[in-house]
Parts: sequence; C-alpha cells; structure tokens
Amino acid sequence: MQTSTRTDLDHTHDPTARCSVPGADGHPDFPIQNLPLGVFSPEGGVRRAGVAIGDQVLDLAAAREAGLLTGEAARAVAMAEPGDLSGLLALGAGPRRALRHQLVALLRAESPDRDRLPPLLHAAMSCTMHLPARIGDYTDFFVGIHHARETGRRLRPDQPLLPNYTHVPVGYHGRASSIRPSGTPVRRPRGQAKPPHRDAPVFGPSRRLDYELELGVWIGPGNDLGTPVPVSEAAGQVAGFCLLNDWSARDVQGWESQPLGPFLAKSFATTVSPWIVTPEALAPFRIPQATRPGGDPAPLPYLLDEADQATGALDLELEILLSTAASRAAGLPPHRVARSNARHMYWTVAQMIAHHTSGGCNLRPGDLLGTGTLSGPDLESCGSLLETSQGGKVPIRLASGEERRFLEDGDEVILTARGRREGFAPIGFGACRAVVLPAS
Amino acid sequence: MQTSTRTDLDHTHDPTARCSVPGADGHPDFPIQNLPLGVFSPEGGVRRAGVAIGDQVLDLAAAREAGLLTGEAARAVAMAEPGDLSGLLALGAGPRRALRHQLVALLRAESPDRDRLPPLLHAAMSCTMHLPARIGDYTDFFVGIHHARETGRRLRPDQPLLPNYTHVPVGYHGRASSIRPSGTPVRRPRGQAKPPHRDAPVFGPSRRLDYELELGVWIGPGNDLGTPVPVSEAAGQVAGFCLLNDWSARDVQGWESQPLGPFLAKSFATTVSPWIVTPEALAPFRIPQATRPGGDPAPLPYLLDEADQATGALDLELEILLSTAASRAAGLPPHRVARSNARHMYWTVAQMIAHHTSGGCNLRPGDLLGTGTLSGPDLESCGSLLETSQGGKVPIRLASGEERRFLEDGDEVILTARGRREGFAPIGFGACRAVVLPAS
Repeated sequence: MQTSTRTDLDHTHDPTARCSVPGADGHPDFPIQNLPLGVFSPEGGVRRAGVAIGDQVLDLAAAREAGLLTGEAARAVAMAEPGDLSGLLALGAGPRRALRHQLVALLRAESPDRDRLPPLLHAAMSCTMHLPARIGDYTDFFVGIHHARETGRRLRPDQPLLPNYTHVPVGYHGRASSIRPSGTPVRRPRGQAKPPHRDAPVFGPSRRLDYELELGVWIGPGNDLGTPVPVSEAAGQVAGFCLLNDWSARDVQGWESQPLGPFLAKSFATTVSPWIVTPEALAPFRIPQATRPGGDPAPLPYLLDEADQATGALDLELEILLSTAASRAAGLPPHRVARSNARHMYWTVAQMIAHHTSGGCNLRPGDLLGTGTLSGPDLESCGSLLETSQGGKVPIRLASGEERRFLEDGDEVILTARGRREGFAPIGFGACRAVVLPAS
Repeated sequence: MQTSTRTDLDHTHDPTARCSVPGADGHPDFPIQNLPLGVFSPEGGVRRAGVAIGDQVLDLAAAREAGLLTGEAARAVAMAEPGDLSGLLALGAGPRRALRHQLVALLRAESPDRDRLPPLLHAAMSCTMHLPARIGDYTDFFVGIHHARETGRRLRPDQPLLPNYTHVPVGYHGRASSIRPSGTPVRRPRGQAKPPHRDAPVFGPSRRLDYELELGVWIGPGNDLGTPVPVSEAAGQVAGFCLLNDWSARDVQGWESQPLGPFLAKSFATTVSPWIVTPEALAPFRIPQATRPGGDPAPLPYLLDEADQATGALDLELEILLSTAASRAAGLPPHRVARSNARHMYWTVAQMIAHHTSGGCNLRPGDLLGTGTLSGPDLESCGSLLETSQGGKVPIRLASGEERRFLEDGDEVILTARGRREGFAPIGFGACRAVVLPAS
C-alpha cells in the first residue's frame, strides 16, 4: 500500500500513548488516538457534547467547566449547543485540533489531572446517542464506482456507466428530516411499485428492502451562497466522518425514479453512526486517489488538486453484518455479509465538495454528505443486497441456515468502519445499526 | 367555471368589507380579505412576524403586546419566533383562523381600535422581507402536466409522459440552503455541461439559464416519522402558499441529471415570494380537480379523496414578467412573457402530501414543497423559457425589441399570482422577483 508522507501526523497519533481511562488502550473503536465528537445524554440527563474514549463518554462541557480545557479548545466547546455541535464544527480545523491536543494531554495515563476525570465520564452503555448536529441539507453522492457499474449493468447491459460518470461527481439531494442515529429502528415503508408481471402499479409494503453501505461527511465551516469552494481548500470544509446506511426500497425506486431521481424509495429512513470521526484521527489512513484507470479522462481543472490526488482517498475497512430474529434467538453472532473499503471512491471528498459548491450552492455547518454505496469489485464486497443477491435472483445463505434476497422484518443491519495501518493504533467508527420493523 | 359550495367561506371573505388602513381597499394583492403572514424587518429594526395589509405591514407581536390580539390568536402569535414563523405554522388551521378573524375585526373600518393601529404599521416600501420560516427540507414536485409533457417530448418524442406520471405524484428533494426571498439577486452559476458539438464536457457560466413558474406550499403541523398523512387529512398540513421560481441551468441539467436527477442545475438558487397566503384566504378560489382526462387511470386509493377531488385544485392566474437592463433604461414596463393558471396541476396539493408521507417520511413545520412548473397548454402559457423558446430554437421578441432564448445578465424575472372570482375580492401573492447577476 502506497502512503505518502504526511505533515498532519503528530504526537496525537502516537500508538504507544496510554490512556488513564480503563479499557481505552486497545479499544477497537475509541482508543486515545481517535476521540470522536458526538451528542449524548446520560441516563436521566439532557443532551450535551461528548467525546468517546474506550467504553466511556467524556462530557465536554463539564470538562470545560472544571477548567480542564482552556483557551481555543474551551472556546470551541463553548460554541457547541447542548444538542447540536454545528457551532463547534463551524470553527474548522484549528480549534478542532486544539481540542484534540488538549484532550490527549488530559486523557494520557501520565496526565496530572487524571484523578479529576472520573466524575466527567459516563458509561457509554448507559448513554443515549443523538444526531451530532441539526442537519440543514443532506446530499447523497454516487462515487462508489463498483456500485455504479454493477447497478448500471442491470439497467443498461451495454453501457453500465453513463457518459457523465467519469466527469461529474454525480449526486442528488436526500431527505434530512428522516436521518436518525444508530439504534433507531427502521419501519419497512409502504410504497407504490409496478411488479413486472402487472399492468398497473400496486401500493403496499416494500418487498425489496435493502441497505446501502456509505460513509457520511459532516460539513464544518460552510460557504456563502455564490462563493464556490476551490478543490484545494475543500478538505477544510470537512468536520469529520460517520457511517451511513442509505436504506432503499428497490421496488419503489424502480418505479418512481424517472425522470427526477430517487425520492420515497430512500426518504423513509437514513441511519448514521453517531460519532464524528475527525480528519485528524483519520490522517494515518489517507492514501493516494487511485480508482481512476489509465484510460479515463482527467478530471476538469476545477476538480483537480495535486495534494488531494496524493492524499485525498481513505483506506478504511468496511463491513456489513446481518443479524436476523432467528439468529439472535439461536444466540448466533451477526453474519458478515460483505467486506469492502472506502478506497473504492471514484471521487475524493474534496472533489465532491468542490463540485457541490462549483455553481455557488452554499453548504452550512452540520450539513451531511453521503458518499454513495461503497462496494468493492467482487460479490463478497458488495455494499447492497441488490448487488450481493444479483438483483434478488441469487439468495445469500447466512450462518443460521436462512437465506436472504432482500431484508426481512426483524433483520438488523450493522455497518462498521476501521482504520488499520502498520505503526499506528487502529481506530473504528462505532457501529451504525438498525433493526427493520414490520410495515405499520 | 364550476365551483362547489364551500363551508369554509365566512364573513372574512366579504368583498364589501372596508379597511381602516388607507390604500388597502381595492389593493391588487393585499386587501383585508387576504392577510398573508411573513417575517419583516422595519428600517433599522430586527426581524418580526407581520401581516401584509395594503401597502403596509402590521407588526403582529406589537399588536399582541398592545392587547389587540387575544386568546388563541395571541397565543398563535406568541409561538412565532422573531425570524421564524414555524411555531405558528405548526399550530394548524384553528389558531391560524382565529388570528385571521381577529385581524379582520381589528382592521375593519368600523373597528373601535382603528386609532390604535398606526403605530403598529410600517410602510412595506421601507421594510425588508425575509424567508418566513427556517426551511428544514424542500421538495420539488412535477405536477404541471403540460410542462412534463412538453419537456418530455424533447427527450422522448414517442413517449412524452413516462408510464409512472399518471400514477405517481413525481417529486424529488431540492436544496433548502439556497432558497432566498424575492428581491435577492441570483448569480448566474458556473457548471459542467457537454455541448452537443463537443466530445468532452466544459466548465463555465451557464449559457441556458432559465426560470420555472411554480407555487410553493408551506407545511404546517408536520407528521411523525413512520406515520403517513392520509389524503383526506393532508389539506390540514398546508399552512399556506407562495410563488416559487425554480431557477434552472438547462445545459448543466442536461448533462448531470442521469441517473439521479437534477442537482447543481437547480441548487444555486430558488426564489420565493415572502408572504404566506393562507388556505383561508384562498378558499374562494378552490375548484374541482379536472386535469385528469377520461382515459387516464384512477389514482390509487391512498391518493383519492372525494372532497379533495371536489375542491382540491386552485384557480389562480399566474404571470411571468421579464424586464431587461435595456428595457429598464428605456423606461419600459416589464414584458409579459406568459400567462398560466394553477389549475394545470395534475395532482392536488393534498395528493402531493399524502404521497410524500405515504412511506413514512416526516414533514416538519416550515418545510417547503414546490409544485413543479405550472405551464398551460399553449406557447403563451409556458412556465419556462425552455418551453417558450422551444428548446432555445425560437427566440421570443420583447416589447423593447430585444430577443431572448434564455436569460441574460441583468434580466429580472417577476412572477405573480392572483385569485379572481365573481362575488369575491381579488387577492394577490405579491411579487416573486429577482435579477440575474453575471457569473462571478
């Protein structure tokens, strides 16, 4: 794996750092090298800003009030409203880094303030996680090229990728109101669809309910209407990342989507993992952009930046796990349906942002972008059941002995993401999970 | 014209009512029978809720504080935040009607409180109008059947309307962040397009900038995620109406829109008229739904309601006016490019809402719906230049002697809407206008 030398690696990435919080060292998701931001409420308490550390959540406002955060970091925490980190995200990289540095100093095993931490910590198990920001607009892209090609092949065997795909980071507007944090059940939608053997459409519960494995991108500072963000500055707009499940009713989608795109097939629910994993935490896992094969056209100049091409992609291992009602009853662990990687993005996040704003459209702090489904190149790495089951034709067999073409009621879908690189501590995103409820 | 007997007509629609505010009687838009809601700031003042009456704006909070609004109406006004009417809209029809009734009593020429009004009034000319609510999500529909057929004909001469059109109130998510009130200039977007004679796409200022004549619908109470709104109750979700210009860059749209729909071709700007014209004010202009020709299939049951079919359409005269830099310099009035009518909606607003929520998607107070372009059946009633100029092939000739295929810098587009019916006072929406600035 080629990895460029990065100037944004510092002592906060030191894999030998030890944390005073029990269980944080070696935690699969949240060791001291991660420190993602979120909004939580402790048992019986109100919403507040927090940081995940091991199996605990550190109350940021309480840490500030205790005088354990100072200067730029304290001011950053003060900008977060109790239930909405937008004000903090809007400050951009400088204050976010200052907060990270102070948190590492505070949480290290040798911190002189380590004895003052316990009252500020809440067991994650006992906390409720919320959306980390009030989402103004949600945009979903289509940059997973294997997904684009595979789903395109079903509609156009001779031309799986449309001519614009290699030029345009294709995206569309999604529904912000129905985005929910991990753990919120998803009700199977009713909708209108036209089965192939029927002359007229029918209305009823979706029979082809699916997931889509995506990364979400939280927007930081935002831009003014009419003022595009150059691709060279676009990374500065990213406040962090999450996992995103773009639940999709394929039967509804097939019937409704022409000519204006997906609408109700997706707007009934979108699930995100609740922690914002910062660009700083992900710095070790940046890699060159390499999905564009030699024969593809070069991006237009407004989408091309040398530094972005060198380090704008992400090497993150992604997994999709499925647990059924029967498998849970039998005490079986979730079945791994697919493994993929974030490197299968044809466009970088900076390119997505530069394109999104290129006509003057304004992004606002707390806006959310989805990458689109991040499938890999083969059947074992598909980011949706539509692909894994080849359009519903070939069921997958689970460890419980059950088969699935699409999701059934009681199924729980769990997405995970993990950065792993020699010489660095592995970090994870925490789960993005939700169980499917029957149609009402 | 067929108009059903309506139980929602009352003394507030009395065309003989006289208003104590000079100039309100016979005002083309805002006589005492209209009373639309909005957010304004008087010269040097902060944002507040107001009602348009003639050429004045009545400060609602000040009227309440002066004790001129009481009970349910006063409580409704108290729910409006200074710059956001969502809290008031969320209350639904009852409190909104109570407010209307008290305002009519207060503003009538014979009101005992008429002498207390002048300090509460601000000259509209000196006020700045704002968006009336913080828009959570914006959805644009496609219910103007003449527009759908005409634009479809350009792409598919043999099948102008896709098979789903007569079954599905087709819609898609729009961009909320770039919606601006009337009067805010619109900057010509840059974007990616592929001219027919080129092998590769180019990036630059749009050469086919267009308007789209639409109505906007402001959502009132909203619904919970997973709880559809039945079509029979959908009218209760409507807080009011505005004009909406869905600015469109046709060259960008043609290149980017497959497979996921319009994105940057529209997200650079949407202009709305700032006043929320209430369902109560529009009651006299309701007509039966009549766009569905005999051969078309009946709507599926979840979209069909007898009362909605009887009174769910609107008879509103719509106009598009164009003023160019040269015509303004010559002192010429705006040129009328088209006249249409809101009756050209293939689906009612209640059907749009029932469909939108049918899969469980939640609407929130202050959400905005667009109808889609409301063209009439002929060249003189086209709601977009794409249609009027027949795809840019046949320029229109303005009174100034200039020609237009698409919009040029300095052009100002003005949309108007007016209800007119024998036995009732005509009312209008106020203008939805914006001038085109050159690309930056």
